[in-house]
Amino acid sequence: LGFPVRTSALNENVDVLVLLPQNSSYIFSISRVSPAIEYARQQLANGHFAGLNFNFQYVSSECGVDALFALVDRAPDERPDLIFGPVCEYAAAPVVRVASHWNIPVMSAGALAYGFINKNSEFSLLTRTAPSYMKMAETFAVMSQHFGWRSVLLIYHDDKEERNCYFTVEGVHVLLEDDHDISVFVMDSREPLTYVDELIKPMYEHEVVIMCTYADVVREIMLNAHRRRLTTSNRLFFNIELFNSSSYGDGSWRRGDRYDNEAKAAYAFLNTVTLLRSTKPEFENFSMEMRKSYQKMGVDVCEINMFMEGFHDALLLYALALDDAMKSGYTKKNGKEITQRMWNRTFEGIAGQVSMDANGDRNGDFSVISMTNHETGSHETVMSYFGTNGSLQINPDFDPKLFTVQGAPGPPSSQPTD
Amino acid sequence: LGFPVRTSALNENVDVLVLLPQNSSYIFSISRVSPAIEYARQQLANGHFAGLNFNFQYVSSECGVDALFALVDRAPDERPDLIFGPVCEYAAAPVVRVASHWNIPVMSAGALAYGFINKNSEFSLLTRTAPSYMKMAETFAVMSQHFGWRSVLLIYHDDKEERNCYFTVEGVHVLLEDDHDISVFVMDSREPLTYVDELIKPMYEHEVVIMCTYADVVREIMLNAHRRRLTTSNRLFFNIELFNSSSYGDGSWRRGDRYDNEAKAAYAFLNTVTLLRSTKPEFENFSMEMRKSYQKMGVDVCEINMFMEGFHDALLLYALALDDAMKSGYTKKNGKEITQRMWNRTFEGIAGQVSMDANGDRNGDFSVISMTNHETGSHETVMSYFGTNGSLQINPDFDPKLFTVQGAPGPPSSQPTD
Repeated sequence: LGFPVRTSALNENVDVLVLLPQNSSYIFSISRVSPAIEYARQQLANGHFAGLNFNFQYVSSECGVDALFALVDRAPDERPDLIFGPVCEYAAAPVVRVASHWNIPVMSAGALAYGFINKNSEFSLLTRTAPSYMKMAETFAVMSQHFGWRSVLLIYHDDKEERNCYFTVEGVHVLLEDDHDISVFVMDSREPLTYVDELIKPMYEHEVVIMCTYADVVREIMLNAHRRRLTTSNRLFFNIELFNSSSYGDGSWRRGDRYDNEAKAAYAFLNTVTLLRSTKPEFENFSMEMRKSYQKMGVDVCEINMFMEGFHDALLLYALALDDAMKSGYTKKNGKEITQRMWNRTFEGIAGQVSMDANGDRNGDFSVISMTNHETGSHETVMSYFGTNGSLQINPDFDPKLFTVQGAPGPPSSQPTD
Repeated sequence: LGFPVRTSALNENVDVLVLLPQNSSYIFSISRVSPAIEYARQQLANGHFAGLNFNFQYVSSECGVDALFALVDRAPDERPDLIFGPVCEYAAAPVVRVASHWNIPVMSAGALAYGFINKNSEFSLLTRTAPSYMKMAETFAVMSQHFGWRSVLLIYHDDKEERNCYFTVEGVHVLLEDDHDISVFVMDSREPLTYVDELIKPMYEHEVVIMCTYADVVREIMLNAHRRRLTTSNRLFFNIELFNSSSYGDGSWRRGDRYDNEAKAAYAFLNTVTLLRSTKPEFENFSMEMRKSYQKMGVDVCEINMFMEGFHDALLLYALALDDAMKSGYTKKNGKEITQRMWNRTFEGIAGQVSMDANGDRNGDFSVISMTNHETGSHETVMSYFGTNGSLQINPDFDPKLFTVQGAPGPPSSQPTD
């Protein structure tokens, strides 16, 4: 009993207020994310950070103002040392503002919208441990530059609550607007198919069509486009899969209905941009443990989504930064100093190396998946975008003509011409 | 010394947190509004409410998040009994949410946007003592119904900060969208004139043009429309003057430049919707006292705007409601009970009778001003809309044909046809 602790080890109690929805219909609900946080806590407890004692308090917060109340209702001496979440943009905004004002770090695998990029004032203590929508949009910007696209049609649905597709499309718009002719088409999320016919005209007028909507709506749009002979080499179709979750279009055409064959033919022209999936052995163990936890809780979850990974990695990053800050003589109450030590940093996360940019936002790696076997209708990754160095890696057997719009300037020649 | 106080009189200290901008470039700055609040306090001190002791704390809040910080930074036992302001919608929203959650009444002559109309949840303790944008929009809805308009073009500038014209146009849009063909044209508030030429085509396609923008921009648009021969009996032009303040188009064509004559001819087709101006003797005294206060403070203010009037009347209304609530056995800390007693109530304000609707929003009376002498270019009120009973009162010598679009169904006959 009472072995002397090494002076270099970290001994501290950390109160963490976790603001996520209780309602498990959200893919970032408490029941889904808490096992990932617990997994990270256990990993930390077995190593250099054994002296860190985390006290998590989970408070249910959906996309409204409950998260703000959970924070401001606390007496000054009961404020947390760290806040995890919220994910929803409208819940996160006031929480981050007040927490930044009170010098409390906020870490989220959400708050992905463009608006949070400005860390100079209101959002100064926000660290985003999942790739934001702007990071995803970089994939399109780099492809467009490489393949010489000029006009883009953005199609999305807006649910007016989480607004994931609205904010996704905002990111693409912000990155492409300066040097592209862009049009935007919004669908009501309750009746997204009502106006599918009206999409035909704008599709005719653009080279590249980028969609963010439900998988079934993507299929309907592609079927429609195919019937109207819009799926030609004059036009590229993209579909955005968000969060490594099949809630948003995941590129699968099969439904077991009488349109499957037609859909397969249409999807030969559809490409999907998605987070690059990890294959690291540690991630397999993490996934397995997560699934076990969900079974125990009776939650029906089989996908390991981006939020689980992001909040897991957030705890590791906080431990690293707190350690550094305390070695420099700061306390856990100095949110600004701790936050600064999370930014511009690379560390090993559960699914691979995590690279945080100088603005406290995680860099993202994304895959572009296309149909490579038109008979079976199967897909493969044809290129990948690596956010840390901004590089686009194209598979050697991918024909770049497929992403070059007919009549457009086309990709730069791989042979220097002078 | 120490005469016994009548038991029916109200004796209470009330802490009021006033959240308005210090920066006097805002027409609802502390320096402009505080004399009106002080005037109301003195009126109350001379009557039945002499035992009410108000302690005002002014905290500067512009349109950002400072107002929220001013509220949440207070320890629970230091929270105010009443909040006045904020006016800016983005500052008001989180303050009203937190105050409603904490059972503190919020009264504002601002927070005029449509979004605040929902008092069932987040904004339950908000009372708006100036007519909201929806109230102003009723004027257009009633005129349209009376004169049979079908298509409307809404033109506004958006400054992305206060966004007064954005929210104004939102109100009109919400009220007219169901039974009108509506188009919207947004101008950058820094360069509103850049796209004036592009306005011509949509003007051709609509019967009624409604503008919310700076007075000089209105003039430029009218000159342009007149030159392109759009000012005909096929089309009606309206201009919205906000807040009884000349910041927004007040219908005056004169600038002393070489376009004055042309502008006068164009403005023969322009009508202005504005708050109905009071002529009550008490208001004259109020105006005079306000101007004296501004002179003393060295503030250059000659207009008595809606915010001064609204915050003045707010204090009277609060006193009436607190009195009633306390007579029913509630304390000043029961914000909900006090707030309920402010709603669905009529009382005498500084500029005339104030009618609060059942939802806690002040009804508005508005005037429509048109040029009645085309030689001198002078204007007169041609009709008025009274929000409390929803009536439109048309001047007997006004020719209703002037507001009837050629080819449109026209106003209902004043003679019943059956």
